[in-house]
Amino acid sequence: MATPLSRRDLEFLLYEWLDVEKLTARERFAEHSRETFDAVLELSEDLATKCFAPVNKLGDQNEPYVGDDGKVVLPAEIGSGIAEFVKAGLMASSFDESLGGMQLPTVINRASSAWFQAANASMSSYAFLTVGNANLLAEYGTPEQIDTWVRPMVEGRFSGTMCLSEPQAGSSLADITTKAEPMADGTYRITGTKMWISAGDHELTENIVHLVLAKAPGGGPGVKGISLFIVPKYLADGTRNDVALVSLNHKMGNRATTNTLLNFGDGTYSPATESGATENPPAHSVPGAVGYLVGEEHRGLSYMFHMMNEARIGVGFLATSIGYAGYLASLEYAKVRTQGRPVDQKDPTSKPVPIIEHADVKRMLLAQKSYVEGALALGLYCSTLVDEELTTTGADRDRATLLLDVLTPITKSWPSQWCLEANNLAIQVHGGYGYTKEFDVEQYYRDNRLNAIHEGAHGIHGLDLLGRKVTMQGGAGLALLVETIATSIERASADDATATYAAELRSSLDRLVEVTAKVWSAGDPSLALANATAYLEAAGHIVIAWMWLEQLLAVGDKSGDFYDGKRAAAQYFYRYELPKTGPQLDLLEALDRTTLNTDPAWL
Amino acid sequence: MATPLSRRDLEFLLYEWLDVEKLTARERFAEHSRETFDAVLELSEDLATKCFAPVNKLGDQNEPYVGDDGKVVLPAEIGSGIAEFVKAGLMASSFDESLGGMQLPTVINRASSAWFQAANASMSSYAFLTVGNANLLAEYGTPEQIDTWVRPMVEGRFSGTMCLSEPQAGSSLADITTKAEPMADGTYRITGTKMWISAGDHELTENIVHLVLAKAPGGGPGVKGISLFIVPKYLADGTRNDVALVSLNHKMGNRATTNTLLNFGDGTYSPATESGATENPPAHSVPGAVGYLVGEEHRGLSYMFHMMNEARIGVGFLATSIGYAGYLASLEYAKVRTQGRPVDQKDPTSKPVPIIEHADVKRMLLAQKSYVEGALALGLYCSTLVDEELTTTGADRDRATLLLDVLTPITKSWPSQWCLEANNLAIQVHGGYGYTKEFDVEQYYRDNRLNAIHEGAHGIHGLDLLGRKVTMQGGAGLALLVETIATSIERASADDATATYAAELRSSLDRLVEVTAKVWSAGDPSLALANATAYLEAAGHIVIAWMWLEQLLAVGDKSGDFYDGKRAAAQYFYRYELPKTGPQLDLLEALDRTTLNTDPAWL
Repeated sequence: MATPLSRRDLEFLLYEWLDVEKLTARERFAEHSRETFDAVLELSEDLATKCFAPVNKLGDQNEPYVGDDGKVVLPAEIGSGIAEFVKAGLMASSFDESLGGMQLPTVINRASSAWFQAANASMSSYAFLTVGNANLLAEYGTPEQIDTWVRPMVEGRFSGTMCLSEPQAGSSLADITTKAEPMADGTYRITGTKMWISAGDHELTENIVHLVLAKAPGGGPGVKGISLFIVPKYLADGTRNDVALVSLNHKMGNRATTNTLLNFGDGTYSPATESGATENPPAHSVPGAVGYLVGEEHRGLSYMFHMMNEARIGVGFLATSIGYAGYLASLEYAKVRTQGRPVDQKDPTSKPVPIIEHADVKRMLLAQKSYVEGALALGLYCSTLVDEELTTTGADRDRATLLLDVLTPITKSWPSQWCLEANNLAIQVHGGYGYTKEFDVEQYYRDNRLNAIHEGAHGIHGLDLLGRKVTMQGGAGLALLVETIATSIERASADDATATYAAELRSSLDRLVEVTAKVWSAGDPSLALANATAYLEAAGHIVIAWMWLEQLLAVGDKSGDFYDGKRAAAQYFYRYELPKTGPQLDLLEALDRTTLNTDPAWL
Repeated sequence: MATPLSRRDLEFLLYEWLDVEKLTARERFAEHSRETFDAVLELSEDLATKCFAPVNKLGDQNEPYVGDDGKVVLPAEIGSGIAEFVKAGLMASSFDESLGGMQLPTVINRASSAWFQAANASMSSYAFLTVGNANLLAEYGTPEQIDTWVRPMVEGRFSGTMCLSEPQAGSSLADITTKAEPMADGTYRITGTKMWISAGDHELTENIVHLVLAKAPGGGPGVKGISLFIVPKYLADGTRNDVALVSLNHKMGNRATTNTLLNFGDGTYSPATESGATENPPAHSVPGAVGYLVGEEHRGLSYMFHMMNEARIGVGFLATSIGYAGYLASLEYAKVRTQGRPVDQKDPTSKPVPIIEHADVKRMLLAQKSYVEGALALGLYCSTLVDEELTTTGADRDRATLLLDVLTPITKSWPSQWCLEANNLAIQVHGGYGYTKEFDVEQYYRDNRLNAIHEGAHGIHGLDLLGRKVTMQGGAGLALLVETIATSIERASADDATATYAAELRSSLDRLVEVTAKVWSAGDPSLALANATAYLEAAGHIVIAWMWLEQLLAVGDKSGDFYDGKRAAAQYFYRYELPKTGPQLDLLEALDRTTLNTDPAWL
């Protein structure tokens, strides 16, 4: 099996481009060095390759099921692999030293995680959902909550979930109906049903810490009424909380991550039943799942966005990593599979050539390379912005936050679309073999297809980007992005090797700015947002073109196959991909009303 | 479950647009009438809905396997459904009356088949592979071969396959190594291994008629040495021929169609063993699978193209039909699933609206509609060209053949790419539900992914179109296509409702012609074909834009939701899709060398 990720590319991106070593000058990371970074990355590659990758197909082909005892059954290798991950200290890598963590920079931590995501996407989610959950609680939880719930997660003894969606409310969180009733002892009773909960039940850990959005009385309608609760599978005293697994969802891919429908407070594990109802029951025995408020009431969605934004960057990495694994698998295949001859070779008795010699196969490989390496660059760049947030204050911090806000919908959506397309091309490079379970690429495609759906469906991010992010603070978000890209363009304009690309990017970027103004000029949000998805996709391609320009600046005049590969992929992206934004921006500029004017009855 | 195809759309395309009733004026179809056409179409809808659609998920979830007795096990419903299809006379519908067929026009027959392909793609393949095989033999077989093999296939007692690929040779048939050794009695002994043989083994029929490409002595190297043989699973006397199932391929989708690795003449069913070797064995007992030559030696590939071209149009219909089923499923879902509110609705207590009200969902539905209805139009149009070939002579026939030759790579590839994208959008419309096995759309995606791979991979059709079809006969192929499209453009230019579209299509078509001349102007086939896939895709979009213009001409000024839907989908295609050809044609015009110049070592 091909390695699922490229150590060489990571080194290039981290050290030759982003110069992450300079982070060690920051107080937060002062204990670290290139050596500790490399040690973590090597450990990650080693563990991912040995304990995660070999379980990938196994997990796909042995879908989780509910055993006779009502417990979820997963292949044992998933538990043992995650145990190795925990044992190596990787669950704790991003956390503060005060929590027993390594206090690694986010960018190194993400690079480490990408190895596991590339090796076994659905197995990795158990770990990274837990990390996201613990990060949220470390930020907003009380010291007691941190001791009770965060520390065991950092130690890998507990795992975490995020419970937002309900059967009737996915994209529209305003419509959730899960209720939280306050008790005299300060706890709450949670009742309701949550859908699509990844890692929502399993026996991998002693306990599962659900972070649940629910409506407490008095919050008003819509998202304003939402509060956030810790609702553990087992209470601190070891009794079962009333969180019941209703069913497992059977999915096209990503099959080793259990995905669940959970009932909170339906009486399946009712303390009232267990202890017998009394007239003045202790709060503990009132029906409902016991929940502990995080932060203040009615501010739940703002806390949850802490985890959601992190999860969105994580989804971008997940999509990128699966795309990367497919690229490398199809590259390896294309080098060894022989078929056909060059166009100008007329002698049928000549030996067939490796298919990598054919122009169209090179096209499919260059496309994949430009997608996955471009997406990885963006993910790591965004991670450096998180590190800026963690280590700066004032205007510097605000700047990092604003830029990250603008980039988040892109870094989530672009890889979900284009690294999926990379997987589609990886199948095509394999021909019929790629359509079979003998190879890995069909699973990559199926696994990756999830990423345009969860953590905000594709279209939602278009609305977020065009309706909120580029317009917020009077347009400061877009202005900052443009200013940041312009700095790269300026540097690239000075060099013959990159000047043409710089001019093309400048032109596309200028159009994006004009079009943004144009769509909002009519003062009609429905019209402005009618083609928000086209906006998201055009902006995404422009941002990735920027990432390629940045990579070329880092390549400079270095020689060797690796750098020539970067040059070829950049050229591919500018010749084949960036021009696709032209028609998208034309459509936006025209304030096209085709979709608005279409009566549903016509469909 | 939604109906998998639209009767209303078929009626529009067949009667309001293509005016297929006029075919009944042709001698070959003189026995037919609108009534017989409608009867077949209604019967097809009825049977497809009752006997095929309910088995679709069952077939997917109960993959064929090899039982202890070495026989392939399929769900019984597949056999009984196909038996109903045969009983209704539909296996015979396209064949001459002299063969017991209905002698239906191809276009009606394809419309009939589309119902079964939409209802259950992988089940339908058993029938349509048999039809294609029998059609080839009806054309090139001897009267005796027709009696022995074709008649039982038309009656549904035997089934057929096409055996081209080998493990080392898929796209490159020049490299097949299966051998045919002539015997004194006029038969041949076939030895070799064939890969990816759909319906290559099963117990649905009494016998399986394999059409096998193999090399007989003296044919020279490459494709010139290829001959075509009938190699039945059982010989006419009932003895087992030496055709052995090695294994079933396990696929991402299309799972109910067995896909096989077959050994010919490996001794598994050796007649020599059975009867005992003698010094002068009867030809019958010489090792090898018994094969019967079709037509002349060394002309096998030209015969096989008869079936391949038919199969390529069939794959286009298959991709279209699966796309259509997904479109209708997601349309139905979008009408009933409520979520969110209009952009300008600020009251969170207002009722959520059906998601079909959202602009981005309408975009995804319009895109699907424009893809599947455009592709269906093209498939039916190509089918009328086959009917022209069947019922005309001389210049008329040559014209139909030439136009069909040019359109075949497009009618195969375009639906395989874009109706797959339709399925991708159908998943997206469903959100998380679309990713689960509770709904049908994830299976549609998996089933449809095959179509860009088999019957010539996507890139092969680019080479076929740009390297052969548009250049053949001194460019007459492209000229005829352009002339034919120009007739539509001329009609559409005269009407305000279509004049703008006509001008846009004219402009794209002119560019295609210029670009075709440009890529060949350098006299370097490698360079000319370096971006053949982009050419295929641009030409495909232009042809589908033509199909939409043709549909608008048929719509005229008729009123009602159905016609408004056609107008909206056409508008979608011209606003969102046709402009995508601009960057593709730019790339071709620039004679871009990115792929050619990329050294495999850089990847």
